[in-house]
Amino acid sequence: MHPMLFYVLLAFGCGVCLCDYWKDREELIKEEESQILGSSIKLTHEEEVVNKRLIKIKSEEFNNGFDNVVNFLPSQHFFKTKAQVENSKVFKFIQKLPKGANLHVHDTALVSGKFLFNLTYRNNLYACFRNGSFQLKFFSKPESSCKWILLKKLRQISPSVDDFISSKFSLIVDNPERMYKSVDEVWTAFQDIFAVVSPLITYRPVFEDYFYRALEELYEDNVMYLEFRGLLPEVYELNGTVYDEVEVAGLYINVLKKFKEDHPDFVGAKFIYAPMRLADNATAWKYVETVKTLKEYYPDFLAGFDLVGEEKKGYPLKNFIEQIKSLEGIVKFFFHAGETKWYGTDIDENLVDAILLNTSRIGHGFALLKHPKLLQMVKEKDIAIEVNPISNQVLTYVKDLRNHPAIFYINQNYPVVICNDDPSFWGTKGLSYDWYMAFMGLSSKYTDLRFLKQLAINSLKYSMFSNDDERNFAFSLWEKKWKKFIMDFLQNQELQDYENIKVVLV
Amino acid sequence: MHPMLFYVLLAFGCGVCLCDYWKDREELIKEEESQILGSSIKLTHEEEVVNKRLIKIKSEEFNNGFDNVVNFLPSQHFFKTKAQVENSKVFKFIQKLPKGANLHVHDTALVSGKFLFNLTYRNNLYACFRNGSFQLKFFSKPESSCKWILLKKLRQISPSVDDFISSKFSLIVDNPERMYKSVDEVWTAFQDIFAVVSPLITYRPVFEDYFYRALEELYEDNVMYLEFRGLLPEVYELNGTVYDEVEVAGLYINVLKKFKEDHPDFVGAKFIYAPMRLADNATAWKYVETVKTLKEYYPDFLAGFDLVGEEKKGYPLKNFIEQIKSLEGIVKFFFHAGETKWYGTDIDENLVDAILLNTSRIGHGFALLKHPKLLQMVKEKDIAIEVNPISNQVLTYVKDLRNHPAIFYINQNYPVVICNDDPSFWGTKGLSYDWYMAFMGLSSKYTDLRFLKQLAINSLKYSMFSNDDERNFAFSLWEKKWKKFIMDFLQNQELQDYENIKVVLV
Ligand SMILES: [Zn+2]
Ligand SMILES: [Zn+2]
Repeated sequence: MHPMLFYVLLAFGCGVCLCDYWKDREELIKEEESQILGSSIKLTHEEEVVNKRLIKIKSEEFNNGFDNVVNFLPSQHFFKTKAQVENSKVFKFIQKLPKGANLHVHDTALVSGKFLFNLTYRNNLYACFRNGSFQLKFFSKPESSCKWILLKKLRQISPSVDDFISSKFSLIVDNPERMYKSVDEVWTAFQDIFAVVSPLITYRPVFEDYFYRALEELYEDNVMYLEFRGLLPEVYELNGTVYDEVEVAGLYINVLKKFKEDHPDFVGAKFIYAPMRLADNATAWKYVETVKTLKEYYPDFLAGFDLVGEEKKGYPLKNFIEQIKSLEGIVKFFFHAGETKWYGTDIDENLVDAILLNTSRIGHGFALLKHPKLLQMVKEKDIAIEVNPISNQVLTYVKDLRNHPAIFYINQNYPVVICNDDPSFWGTKGLSYDWYMAFMGLSSKYTDLRFLKQLAINSLKYSMFSNDDERNFAFSLWEKKWKKFIMDFLQNQELQDYENIKVVLV
Repeated sequence: MHPMLFYVLLAFGCGVCLCDYWKDREELIKEEESQILGSSIKLTHEEEVVNKRLIKIKSEEFNNGFDNVVNFLPSQHFFKTKAQVENSKVFKFIQKLPKGANLHVHDTALVSGKFLFNLTYRNNLYACFRNGSFQLKFFSKPESSCKWILLKKLRQISPSVDDFISSKFSLIVDNPERMYKSVDEVWTAFQDIFAVVSPLITYRPVFEDYFYRALEELYEDNVMYLEFRGLLPEVYELNGTVYDEVEVAGLYINVLKKFKEDHPDFVGAKFIYAPMRLADNATAWKYVETVKTLKEYYPDFLAGFDLVGEEKKGYPLKNFIEQIKSLEGIVKFFFHAGETKWYGTDIDENLVDAILLNTSRIGHGFALLKHPKLLQMVKEKDIAIEVNPISNQVLTYVKDLRNHPAIFYINQNYPVVICNDDPSFWGTKGLSYDWYMAFMGLSSKYTDLRFLKQLAINSLKYSMFSNDDERNFAFSLWEKKWKKFIMDFLQNQELQDYENIKVVLV
């Protein structure tokens, strides 16, 4: 029973002192709810109608999970629930929602598994085993250090190679909890995928199609803006030409231009240069030079700088203070920090440095909850926390998303944005899967459309637009899309469920 | 490298602006550490020596886990790590430590498994299967509703019955993660144990020995005071005599008296009457009467009132407001609340009622983290949170204790006490196992003897002593024991490690 109803019932049946109790209780619950992300939003009359429907389907799905927790999808491993998520009414609702921006995703895992796999049907793709590990690469004529065989031929000889290749492209397995028992194990598998995928997608024609598709998949998921992290790996042609970092950035920009011409209602994309944190001093200084060059060539496209790779295996931010400091005022920072459960270690302390170095957003911030003073600073400095629910689960940081620390950030209205990190590697596409987890698992049974609307607003608010014009364009475009979504919903709903809607709209 | 050392190194090798950075960094980390539970304690010179040793063994164990997470015991299921815990140097250190009080444990799970099992060798114990479930009971001559067989005889016929009985006494299984996939499943197993154990331990002579042993096991683990929750189940004699709730409380008091005579340095025990929350209105009013009667008969022994049983299956506190309100000023409350991951449900809201009803402590408070306003009230009202780490893991609330919400409570110095909930059911004894988990898993790599000392102080501070005399006696006894522990440690250490200590003590 809803507390309000309880109060009303009791107001007529009890002595004065208990009535006070129910009033206090109601006020306390209200006060708590008033702090949650999205709770300050006032919905329009039309939005309220949509919200009513959303509350109904959320509540059905929640109660279904409450009765049997295996049906409460955020509590189970995503590899086991993917099909159920895709059948969920709440998920389908979220898919249609204009979600704003995706602010945390990596260059090598931008597209869905199916598209990635289809790339292996391109001409000139060769396969070989080098020191026991499978490799793919495009050649006009393969080099001789490995026994390369044309994949087309290999398929004829052994058709089962397709299953094998698929398995090399993602972390998906039948028994994830047994296969990946620790963060270290799953990161190893992660790097193996990277090694197979990287030479496949860095062939220039594929590279362009891949990035185009990445934008398209976001667009299809009603995401209109992207900030992605990338290594700027060497891109190659069949004739031996290779492109350096600046040229590769140029390739992205050309594709983006083309995509925006084809989709004028897509706002754009920016780039966060994010090379490996497992780097010595000299390499780190090279990163600095690259950032400066990129900034010179593509001041609009380059949003900022970050370092990537498993925080445990690479070096902590404190090893790079001098280099990072030298970039102050030149670019903004978007550091991965606190993607760890190792409390009190160097990895954990990356959060201290990220914040002291004035990071604009924090990647993950999973461990931030363990740092009260840093939490306070994040709020004061208005640093957005890029939360990636499915990533954190698949990479074994948290088993049941109901124990995810972001629940605390969301509760107290920290600047949270929901992102997808590496969708290819766990078989998602766009933002809807992660938004679903956030809506069902990282917030209360009672959060509603206001929560989702705030997530969209946050995603744009914490985007690094080049100027006010771009920002205003993005916001007004999003608002237009949002209104259209509400109107479309009401119209479709009316067709399906005419009588109900009429009553509500009266 | 420790941040301090880093700062010192860099102070000599870098420009002014970076030195500022390292100084700010160090101050920030210090400020964070200054908020953690125990950080305000100033150690004596002797304690510092002991602390140095503790830091060394903790650090070795932590690093060992960092290298391979299966060796980081709080991250793994307790059923797999019990033997390793018992071999840990940190655990052995904690065992010897005067730990103060155990403030959350239940009447039917007070003793270790071995003692419980040995009780089955008593005379007149019969076994039978009733509707497929195994039962044990003492009779002079068994009643006829079931085919009772003397257990002694059953053992002769089928010696494997011992393994069977052992398995009925605890939740311990080889594959806990596969056996107990949800809270619901493990609670069912939990109730099955209860059904077998209850008739065994409510035979009057056993009941007395059982409670005596419960106190003894705490005493052996260097715990000197107990507040336990109980149902006051009917206790029986072979001749058909049964004891009612008040008489059963009397049995406890007699045993306690005897135990204190035998152990004058044991402070005592008090009782929290905690009947089942799955109760209708009339039953709840009966509870009220029982509380009043108990208070009348045993004002010192009765510490307060609570309701028990799975929060999800029973009724929420809000169903009993009238009854509970009628007990205000008569007894204190110690409500189980927020032992749930179901955010936004009635179970979750038990926290609201517990706090509004002025509970003196909260049992578990696992979900408290999800309620910023309630957290604030808990701090203002100085309500202690009874954290039971192993219980929460075994009952599947959290898999890896590094994700336990109590880390947040501990960080910000909320009034946390560490308790053991149902040690029989997961094969622990005393408080040391749970303290080990708290020290290694619920706090930073850097917490030390001050943390453990504060846990002991908190346990006494939030005990419900009858008066200042009792409180002062407890504190001064504990201080004496603490000093003795420090001195004993230094002496033994000196024998083992003479040279080192001499250097440190200079
Ligand atoms: Zn990332
Ligand atoms: Zn309990």
